[in-house]
Amino acid sequence: MIAPLTLNVPSCIEFGSGKLSTLPFHLKNQNRIFFLVDAPILARIDPLISELKKSGKTVLVSTEVVPEPPLEALEILLAPVRAFSPDAIVGVGGGSAMDLAKLVSVLFDGKQKTQDVIGIGKVSGRGVRLVTVTTTAGTGSEVTPIAVLTDTQAKLKKGVVSQYLIPDVAIVDPNLTLSLPAAVTAATGMDAMTHCIEAYTNKHAHPIIDNLAIEGTRLIAANLERCIRNGSDLDARTSMALGSLYGGLCLGPVNTAAVHAMAYPLGGTFKVSHGVSNSVLLPFVMAFNLSGNLKKYADIALAIGAAKGHDDEETAFNGVLKIRQISNACGIPQSLKDLNIPESAIPEMAKAALLVTRLMDNNPRKVELKDAEAIYLKAYHGRVERE
Amino acid sequence: MIAPLTLNVPSCIEFGSGKLSTLPFHLKNQNRIFFLVDAPILARIDPLISELKKSGKTVLVSTEVVPEPPLEALEILLAPVRAFSPDAIVGVGGGSAMDLAKLVSVLFDGKQKTQDVIGIGKVSGRGVRLVTVTTTAGTGSEVTPIAVLTDTQAKLKKGVVSQYLIPDVAIVDPNLTLSLPAAVTAATGMDAMTHCIEAYTNKHAHPIIDNLAIEGTRLIAANLERCIRNGSDLDARTSMALGSLYGGLCLGPVNTAAVHAMAYPLGGTFKVSHGVSNSVLLPFVMAFNLSGNLKKYADIALAIGAAKGHDDEETAFNGVLKIRQISNACGIPQSLKDLNIPESAIPEMAKAALLVTRLMDNNPRKVELKDAEAIYLKAYHGRVERE
Repeated sequence: MIAPLTLNVPSCIEFGSGKLSTLPFHLKNQNRIFFLVDAPILARIDPLISELKKSGKTVLVSTEVVPEPPLEALEILLAPVRAFSPDAIVGVGGGSAMDLAKLVSVLFDGKQKTQDVIGIGKVSGRGVRLVTVTTTAGTGSEVTPIAVLTDTQAKLKKGVVSQYLIPDVAIVDPNLTLSLPAAVTAATGMDAMTHCIEAYTNKHAHPIIDNLAIEGTRLIAANLERCIRNGSDLDARTSMALGSLYGGLCLGPVNTAAVHAMAYPLGGTFKVSHGVSNSVLLPFVMAFNLSGNLKKYADIALAIGAAKGHDDEETAFNGVLKIRQISNACGIPQSLKDLNIPESAIPEMAKAALLVTRLMDNNPRKVELKDAEAIYLKAYHGRVERE
Repeated sequence: MIAPLTLNVPSCIEFGSGKLSTLPFHLKNQNRIFFLVDAPILARIDPLISELKKSGKTVLVSTEVVPEPPLEALEILLAPVRAFSPDAIVGVGGGSAMDLAKLVSVLFDGKQKTQDVIGIGKVSGRGVRLVTVTTTAGTGSEVTPIAVLTDTQAKLKKGVVSQYLIPDVAIVDPNLTLSLPAAVTAATGMDAMTHCIEAYTNKHAHPIIDNLAIEGTRLIAANLERCIRNGSDLDARTSMALGSLYGGLCLGPVNTAAVHAMAYPLGGTFKVSHGVSNSVLLPFVMAFNLSGNLKKYADIALAIGAAKGHDDEETAFNGVLKIRQISNACGIPQSLKDLNIPESAIPEMAKAALLVTRLMDNNPRKVELKDAEAIYLKAYHGRVERE
C-alpha cells in the first residue's frame, strides 16, 4: 500500500526560460526587501532591483556569499539584516547563497541563535516572505527545507532541516545557468543526479517521489554532457533545470543517503565542493549499494541509457559504469587521489561519515565502519568493482 | 524545448491513510474556524472539531452543501460566515463542499461579489487560511485554483479560476473514502480519470504535468474497479486517492478540454452529476479526438491496460474501448438515453458546450458545432465508433 507522505513545497514554482521576470510580481505586497546575491549574477538581477526601487520599495543588497558557508559567514550577515528589518528576503545564486538566505530569513529577528536550529525541526517559525532564485542546476535548495553550514572548528557539515526554510516562491529560470562555467555545471549537475538516484533507491523511497526521481535522473543523464559541450544550449539547460528541480523536490520528503553522508567530510575537512564530493563518491557507493536494491538500481541504469544486461544485477552494474562515464566526460575528477586527499585521511573520514546518521539511515544497504573505509579506499584509487 | 510553467499548489499536501489527524496542527495559529462539511462525513470530523474547541478555538460548522452548487447556495452561506468573521475556513467533502468553501474564503469579507469573480483571474485576494479535506477520489478540487457554480437561470455551469482559491493545506486521506457508495466512487473516479486523460492529451500539455497525468491514469485504471467490488479495500482506495490528487494537480496548469466542456450542459440543464456527465461522454470525445494526438492517446491506452495494436491508431482505439469497459464495469450509464436526456436537446447542448471556450481551446482536435452535435448523437445512442 502507498504509504502516507507530507509534501511541503513552495506554493509557487516559476519554472522555465524568462521566469526571472516574475520576481517583482512575487514581491508586490512587500516593502523592505533584502537580497543576498551571488556576485557574478548581480548584473543580471540589477534591472529587477531598479524596478523594485522605482515602485517605491526599499532594497538592501548583499553579495556576502561564502561557498560551503561556514557558521561565521551566517553570523556576519545577520546583524545588518536585523538593522534593515526586511519583510521579504530573496536568495539568488547557487546552494550557498540560497541556503544562507533561507537561514537569514528565520534567524535575523534574533529569537533563535544558529546553534539552536541545527538539526531537524528546531526552527520555531518565519515572519518574512522568502523567495529563492536558483542560478545552478543544481542543488535543488530553491525548494528544500534544508540548509547546510560548515562547522570549521569541528570540520563538519551541519544541516538545518525545517519546513520554515521552504521558500514561498522558487524561481527556476534556465537562462540564469547559461553563463555557468563548465566545471560548475558538471559538479552541480552531478549533485542533482545524486539527489535523484539517492531518493529513488532510498530505504524510505515513496512512489510519489520515485516518479519525480526517475524522471529527474533521465533528464540529467540525457542533458548534462550537452550543457558541458555547449553552455548556451538553452534546450539542454532547460531540461537540466527541470531535472535539478525534481531532485530538489525529492530532498524534503525522502532525502539522500550514503553518498551525501560520505561527501560531507570531503567538504568539511578538505574544502572539496559539495558537487564534486558527491560526483566522485557516487559510483563507488552505488557499487556497494546495488545488492540493497537491485531492481531500482536497474531502473536507474536504464533511465540513464546504460545497456540492459542479462539480469538486474548486470544492468545495475552497467549503470554504475555509465555514471562514471558521464562524470568523466564532464571533466569531473575520478578519484580521491585526484582531489589530493591523502589515503591516511580515510579512517577519520569514515568515522565522520558514520556520524551523519540522518542520511546514513536512508541508505539501501547498511554501511559499517569497515564498509565506509573500503568505499573510500576504492574511491581513493579510482577503482570501481562489482561486489 | 520544455516550455515555461507556473506551478501554484498548496504549500502542504498531507497524503495518505490517517492524515486527517493532522488537521488541528494545520490550524494551530488560527482561532475562529469555519467548517463547511458534507453532512454524511460530519460524524468523522466531530472528534477533531471537539479537539479544536477544547484547545480554546471558536468553531462554526455548516453542512449547507448543495450538489453542483447553484449561485444561490453560495449566497446563503456568505452572510453567517461574514457575521462569524473567521480566520480559517475548512472545506470537508466532495467537489461541491470544497468549491463552496473556497469561494466563501475569498468572498465572505464582502469586498467582491460572486458575479465579480466569475471567469479567470478576477479574485483580488484572500485574507484567511484555507484548508481542504477531500472525501472522494475525486474532483481534485482540494488542490485546484478552480470552483464551479451552476447558474440555474442561464442553465450553465460557471467557473471561477484564481490562484487565491488554492488552499494553503490539502488533506487527502483515503480512509475518508472507504464509506463512499459505489455509484459515487464510480462517478468521481471516472471524473478523476478524465482530468488525467484530458490533461495528458491537451493542446497545452506540459512535460511536468504529463508525468503526473499518465501516472494518475494508470493508478485509476488499475484501482477503480477494485474499489467498486470492495469499498473497504484501503490499498485500492489509497491508489485511487493518489490518482485523483495527480488529476487535481493537472487542472491548474493545463486543465481539461472538450469532455468537460460538453459535460457542463448535462449538469446545467439536466442535473446530471459532474462525474457521470464526464464518464458518459469520455469515450465518445476520445474517439473523436484520437487523430488530434494519436501518440498520446496510444500512451493512455497502454497505461490503462488496453491491448497494443499494430499501430498507434489501433492501440489508441483499443484505449477508447477499454475506458468504456471500465466505466461499464463500474456501473456507470453508457449513453445519454440512459440518462433520460432527449435527443431533441442535442442542438442546444452543442451550442452551450461551444461557449465553454476556456476548455474547448485546450482540445487536441477542433470541435465545430456539427462535431459537437455528432458526438452527442453517438453518446445518445451509446455507439462508440472508430472515426
